Amino acid sequence: MRQFLAWWEAHCAASAALRFVDINLRGVGQVMFQDNPLSGALFLAAVAWGSFAGGVPAVFGAGVAAVIVATATARWLRVDDAALRAGLYGYNGVLVGLALATFIAPSPWLWCYVVLGAAVSVVATLATANALKPHGVAALTAPFVLVTWILLLATYALGGLAGTALPDAAFVAPVESVAATRLSLGDFAQGVVRSISQVFLKGSAVAALLLLAGLAVNSVAAAAAALGGAILAVIVAHLLGAESDLVTGGLLGFSPVLTAIALATVFNAPSARVVAYAALGTVFTVVAQAACNVALSPFAIPALTAPFVLVSWLFLLPGQRFTKGGTDDGSA
Amino acid sequence: MRQFLAWWEAHCAASAALRFVDINLRGVGQVMFQDNPLSGALFLAAVAWGSFAGGVPAVFGAGVAAVIVATATARWLRVDDAALRAGLYGYNGVLVGLALATFIAPSPWLWCYVVLGAAVSVVATLATANALKPHGVAALTAPFVLVTWILLLATYALGGLAGTALPDAAFVAPVESVAATRLSLGDFAQGVVRSISQVFLKGSAVAALLLLAGLAVNSVAAAAAALGGAILAVIVAHLLGAESDLVTGGLLGFSPVLTAIALATVFNAPSARVVAYAALGTVFTVVAQAACNVALSPFAIPALTAPFVLVSWLFLLPGQRFTKGGTDDGSA
Amino acid sequence: MRQFLAWWEAHCAASAALRFVDINLRGVGQVMFQDNPLSGALFLAAVAWGSFAGGVPAVFGAGVAAVIVATATARWLRVDDAALRAGLYGYNGVLVGLALATFIAPSPWLWCYVVLGAAVSVVATLATANALKPHGVAALTAPFVLVTWILLLATYALGGLAGTALPDAAFVAPVESVAATRLSLGDFAQGVVRSISQVFLKGSAVAALLLLAGLAVNSVAAAAAALGGAILAVIVAHLLGAESDLVTGGLLGFSPVLTAIALATVFNAPSARVVAYAALGTVFTVVAQAACNVALSPFAIPALTAPFVLVSWLFLLPGQRFTKGGTDDGSA
Repeated sequence: MRQFLAWWEAHCAASAALRFVDINLRGVGQVMFQDNPLSGALFLAAVAWGSFAGGVPAVFGAGVAAVIVATATARWLRVDDAALRAGLYGYNGVLVGLALATFIAPSPWLWCYVVLGAAVSVVATLATANALKPHGVAALTAPFVLVTWILLLATYALGGLAGTALPDAAFVAPVESVAATRLSLGDFAQGVVRSISQVFLKGSAVAALLLLAGLAVNSVAAAAAALGGAILAVIVAHLLGAESDLVTGGLLGFSPVLTAIALATVFNAPSARVVAYAALGTVFTVVAQAACNVALSPFAIPALTAPFVLVSWLFLLPGQRFTKGGTDDGSA
Repeated sequence: MRQFLAWWEAHCAASAALRFVDINLRGVGQVMFQDNPLSGALFLAAVAWGSFAGGVPAVFGAGVAAVIVATATARWLRVDDAALRAGLYGYNGVLVGLALATFIAPSPWLWCYVVLGAAVSVVATLATANALKPHGVAALTAPFVLVTWILLLATYALGGLAGTALPDAAFVAPVESVAATRLSLGDFAQGVVRSISQVFLKGSAVAALLLLAGLAVNSVAAAAAALGGAILAVIVAHLLGAESDLVTGGLLGFSPVLTAIALATVFNAPSARVVAYAALGTVFTVVAQAACNVALSPFAIPALTAPFVLVSWLFLLPGQRFTKGGTDDGSA
Repeated sequence: MRQFLAWWEAHCAASAALRFVDINLRGVGQVMFQDNPLSGALFLAAVAWGSFAGGVPAVFGAGVAAVIVATATARWLRVDDAALRAGLYGYNGVLVGLALATFIAPSPWLWCYVVLGAAVSVVATLATANALKPHGVAALTAPFVLVTWILLLATYALGGLAGTALPDAAFVAPVESVAATRLSLGDFAQGVVRSISQVFLKGSAVAALLLLAGLAVNSVAAAAAALGGAILAVIVAHLLGAESDLVTGGLLGFSPVLTAIALATVFNAPSARVVAYAALGTVFTVVAQAACNVALSPFAIPALTAPFVLVSWLFLLPGQRFTKGGTDDGSA
């Protein structure tokens, strides 16, 4: 692995085009905190599989276009070169592209929207990093959530964009209290793997395996945290009586997966206390995901990774107790 | 009083168990900013009276359990010892416990929820204190509001938890403009005392008297501010045409009571200008409480003390003009 | 121009009454970032024209009363004298007064509301400036938006205040996708000028011309940015398929106008890169205005200038790349 990366880095150093590819791949990798072009390539393969198998190739195209626009915008804005090369100005862009093409029907205006959103995601990343600098926590995917929410909300007022896959607006109302159904082993496994693949807005086992592989090539701990977070999330969501469609679809698990990776492996050095702390955060992210879904129902937009951002900030802000990366700025 | 506290402190110094009790009592006392175990004991008596007389003993139990869990969590997280001993990691916890048991029907999952909420309230307190450090204002009850909102919203998506006492979701619509009814002296008095007792989510005159006693043993000024804030809130709410049920139930007055105590006695040294400033803040808190109730009606959750937090932050942030405690961090 | 201002300044220095008038005029001028009493006088003339021609003289009265109350409150709070004299404690007040009288039916309580809102706007301005100090960006009109939202929301719970001109609450639902209608030259021109006059909540061509004159006497660049921002906003809103009533009414353009002035002339030194950056921000403000309208529809309140504040903060926070005023604190 190390040899391969050294070989790749040598080629990138010699070629501006390859360097640009490298930055974009690392941008995709940073969606799950991995500063590694091979992780990014495997993540991209997961998105490609999910998009083509799901019959929505435009989603893959929008993701690729968005990360390229984001990287180009970051260069134009003369961002810090080390952060740029680590992919820290790309991961919000790729997510903006994937989300817009997932929720909005294809049209020429959609592609304008993707370019606009990807460019603004870089501005939002710089803004968030600056706003958080005094507090010593990272921007996470807050720029993606903010920019995408604005763009999706606006589709309801703009006839040129049809948000066909957006949820309907509804009154807040309790879910029906179901008699405690068993979660079959098959449903459990589906919930776990889809919790991982939904980080990239896909409900696909193959995509999940590619994502786990992408994590493992850079950090076995991160892969383990993702899997552990997904298992914990599915169990907690089921026990608390969440709708089984949401549980098996991974829709209550993707934010907890990111919280688990962030708290257990990225920003804290591993220890028994850190694992306990990350588990508490992961469980609370499940509740926060349910809460965000409810809170957004009058607005008819999806929660995206807002629960992950909110809970991770809560758990990272006091984190000088465990933290290893608390003073990094702007990192994913 | 001073003698009693010295005697008690001597015993606490000699006994870890008594020290633990002391910290928890101060945690209850800090709900109304009083770092005094006797205040805490009287506040706890008020909660006990309100809970048992109201036929909801589980609420008292949840409050006690939550403050204990919060204190234990704070110890596990190795928080600053002076702040811990002053009860600053307990007051959000006790409020989380009281609110959850007030709005959610009793069940085993409710108790898991209380433990989760109390533990996370400590994380949220540390996070808020860190986030506010550059600004020199205190966390107030923001951690309580945030954590409880998330937990209550999630009940709508989690069949295991039934938010039976939560408000219904509704469209925002104007209250009927009533012909100016008189506020009878009895209704006025009820509104005033319940404005005080609703700080602990109780509508009880006895509880209010116990709370005033708990304030007075530590600070006569705080008791006077609470009473003055309640009177001002009831008059303003009635004059502006608020629903009389809300006025006499104290439901527009508990946030103003806290604002009055905070602005007039806790964070500013008393003077005529400070009283005028605190009165302006108290009046605006009445309006903010009405506004929060309206804004939250699509979400079907209560405002809790959010109006107090919002207005007090507004009035404390510029407060270097009067402030005595503006540079304290993390205090209630 | 310079001679006139020197003559005026000499008179103000000699007369406390004239100085008070000067501060209030500059307060009105700062609504569009102009620290110039003549700009303020022309802006005030625009408001007067719009109010009297529109049959709502109370709106003009409320604006004048509010800026006076705000200035007096700022003095009482002993704010920084240089900032006070530059009108930085008045612009939020005048906007609060105009908005309250625009959306709420006249009554004695409306006037109490105007006084309360204007006074609190100063507290909110101090608070926002303090909160933003570590981040090096200005408060903009955030205090106006926050205070007015609270006061307007509360009207739904307070029978003494009738928010007769407020929008109805509604479910979020897509606008009908219209066949691409042409925007006639007349409609285009109306949309552009009203986008400018709606900064002061007026849909009037005469008011727009007075506002452009007020900008030009102090800064031709600001007048050009306002006009350019309005043109860009109308074109983008129309192309994206916004409702034509909103486009021609200037209701999607007033926030972009402010963003264009702020990003292109106030906080950044002009250059080709700055113009491109400001254009990107202006386009995104159109989308954000549409999004805010949608997001607020369940709450039945107007977006005011929130989209301008949000997008300008996003685009100013990273602005050390271009910025000339990034380290100013609290300026409009």
